[in-house]
Amino acid sequence: MSEDLLNRRYRLVGKGAPLFYEKPLHVVRGEGVLLFDADGNEYLDAYNNVPVVGHCNPRVVEALTRQAGLLNVHTRYLHENLLDYTERLTATFSAPLDMAILTCTGSEANDVALRMVRELTGKRGIICSNSTYHGNTTAVDELSTMFRGGKSESPNVRAIPFPETYRPLNGLTGEALADAYVNEVQAAIRAFEESGTGFAGMLVCPIFANEGLPDVPAGVMPRIARIVREAGGMLIFDEVQAGFGRTGYMWGHQMIGVEPDIVTMGKPMGNGHPIAGLVSSADIINAFRSRVMYFNTFGGNPVSCAVGLAVLDVIQEERLLDNVRNVGAYVAQGLRELKQRHEAIGDIRARGLFFGVEMVSDRARKTPSAEMANMVLNRMRENGVLISRAGPFDNVLKMRPPLPFTKAHADRLLSTLDQCLEAVAHV
Amino acid sequence: MSEDLLNRRYRLVGKGAPLFYEKPLHVVRGEGVLLFDADGNEYLDAYNNVPVVGHCNPRVVEALTRQAGLLNVHTRYLHENLLDYTERLTATFSAPLDMAILTCTGSEANDVALRMVRELTGKRGIICSNSTYHGNTTAVDELSTMFRGGKSESPNVRAIPFPETYRPLNGLTGEALADAYVNEVQAAIRAFEESGTGFAGMLVCPIFANEGLPDVPAGVMPRIARIVREAGGMLIFDEVQAGFGRTGYMWGHQMIGVEPDIVTMGKPMGNGHPIAGLVSSADIINAFRSRVMYFNTFGGNPVSCAVGLAVLDVIQEERLLDNVRNVGAYVAQGLRELKQRHEAIGDIRARGLFFGVEMVSDRARKTPSAEMANMVLNRMRENGVLISRAGPFDNVLKMRPPLPFTKAHADRLLSTLDQCLEAVAHV
Repeated sequence: MSEDLLNRRYRLVGKGAPLFYEKPLHVVRGEGVLLFDADGNEYLDAYNNVPVVGHCNPRVVEALTRQAGLLNVHTRYLHENLLDYTERLTATFSAPLDMAILTCTGSEANDVALRMVRELTGKRGIICSNSTYHGNTTAVDELSTMFRGGKSESPNVRAIPFPETYRPLNGLTGEALADAYVNEVQAAIRAFEESGTGFAGMLVCPIFANEGLPDVPAGVMPRIARIVREAGGMLIFDEVQAGFGRTGYMWGHQMIGVEPDIVTMGKPMGNGHPIAGLVSSADIINAFRSRVMYFNTFGGNPVSCAVGLAVLDVIQEERLLDNVRNVGAYVAQGLRELKQRHEAIGDIRARGLFFGVEMVSDRARKTPSAEMANMVLNRMRENGVLISRAGPFDNVLKMRPPLPFTKAHADRLLSTLDQCLEAVAHV
Repeated sequence: MSEDLLNRRYRLVGKGAPLFYEKPLHVVRGEGVLLFDADGNEYLDAYNNVPVVGHCNPRVVEALTRQAGLLNVHTRYLHENLLDYTERLTATFSAPLDMAILTCTGSEANDVALRMVRELTGKRGIICSNSTYHGNTTAVDELSTMFRGGKSESPNVRAIPFPETYRPLNGLTGEALADAYVNEVQAAIRAFEESGTGFAGMLVCPIFANEGLPDVPAGVMPRIARIVREAGGMLIFDEVQAGFGRTGYMWGHQMIGVEPDIVTMGKPMGNGHPIAGLVSSADIINAFRSRVMYFNTFGGNPVSCAVGLAVLDVIQEERLLDNVRNVGAYVAQGLRELKQRHEAIGDIRARGLFFGVEMVSDRARKTPSAEMANMVLNRMRENGVLISRAGPFDNVLKMRPPLPFTKAHADRLLSTLDQCLEAVAHV
């Protein structure tokens, strides 16, 4: 059955369309933090951040159904839902970030953010990290350094080493390490200015999710933000992964205490429904719109906004941020305990309900082991728990469940991980 | 009430977010080809192509609801809906176009099509028309010649005059006119080759919808297709407006009898739900995917595909293509009659249920009158019929209703247009 599906898939969408797991999973139903396959097997979903309030959340489905039966049109007519949603959304930011542009995908949100900073600064140069991905459009793909050995092929993009303490730049520590990362940004800005490209801004994930959720040296991000602005650039935070409560804060930048000029968002925004967008200041968005005719046919339609509102309702009324902090701390503690017993764990990172587990073949040398990570995640899948991996060496187990994740779910995740690490150690 | 809404809108999404009509319409409900405003007034929707099978079509809403309550995940797991939909969709094309990439918006579809032809040809140069718009991403926006006086600012894009018989290039006619348009494409290809940019392909709407639906000199499009391929380029047809039965054929290129290498699609695909994509050959898509990691989080999810399937079901089972041909011919005949009585109509274009009415201040000189077009469409709105305008001079009344448009609806459209033209003639 799955074999037939796989062959049909190869024929209709191609072998190159990405699939998870050595034995791909044929899913048929989702509920809360659980997925079910065609044979009725249950899986604990510890990967998917899109269904942020749980797979098929009934309140979200009800809002979707009600509005889809009433009206679904573009935003060149007046409708309350666009305004109610934008008002609720912008209220979760501090004062200067008070206006929105709604799109359908995070790629579109990042693309329009790039258009915005380039249009308003009159410069082209964008700084990103050396192990990242922000989306699939031509312009955003120029930042996909994770597929290109840490570099961009575009003269308009420069990658800096992402800040971390685990494999610190040049083996430095403390203030010297912080200085080194800040200097990389300075150097990139200077190179843009000298090449004539000019410096438009910086686009990064505030928690460096694709980079493997590194611990960032203290003070680096506020210093980088200051430097970007002093050079006339704008700071864009891609909150597609960090946003909507993932870290225990509504937004990742609120956790790290750095205010950007533009926030982009996507994946969890509609719990699976295609809604995304950016939030910035009225000054910035009005200046952009006065120069550029930007319209998005499906962006901000009444159905998408009804869904977005329902997601915000559930996050707030079910106190999911509190749950993220409580259960997140519980999982983090469990992972630290696992690290004591499993040599293959080199490091543990935790931000709310987002975890990275560094798999290494030599803990002292911090030798990354993509192979071990791959074995663990496939074994987890066989044992009914879904996770993935990330990071520049593809060796960081990535765990990022829907937010209604309980301590019971956490126990299941931790015990299955424990078993799989044990089994893999003896392969 | 609408005043409050407007002020909230300016505060939350900005004055630059586009709105229709001098007195914006506050819509609250849609049903079939009708929209209703907050005061309970009914409007005949003769503009929106997105709700192709009618606003809030119950079969589409039911499919959406059922699947949204069951499962909504990305395509890195196996699921039948992606395959069932892709199979049904590609079956509407002739044999070489047998594989798909699903996205969320037409902009994304055109962006990945541009990535594809540039990646596979190793060249950058794209030919488009001089009065077009294909979407809002950085790369696709380089083709937005309608906002830039008929030109592109990018060295990677060259605009050719769109082919038409109403205001023919250099006043030519017959074979000489056809030759002239073909020569423009030849010249653009040569210029790309000489500049070192190289020629990657051509991206146009097969019915030149944004250009005002011009009558194209016979033989021009097949000749252009041949030239593009002989030069090693690929032909992309943007069927975002022409596709899904609009012309009385399933695809606009089937009406004009020219087979492209890539077809992009969007707007009507999900009747308002954000689904879009491209269809091409397995050879082209597999070659692209072997070089580029393309993934779209929401693209091809089970909910979008269930919606897409329902749209295809309704188009087929309700025989909407037949309706398009029948009612389309009826409206076209009515418009020709109006032209006999209204001097302000310079020309009538009709393709299925898609109509362009050229408003002119001097019929002999074909002097475009954007002012008259604007007056007519705002008066139509006041009289309960929604249309818009298009074309390089913004003077072509654009009528493009949902496909379940009956002769009774057509009578209402025509009689209201008659009255509004009469009233405007005496202003």
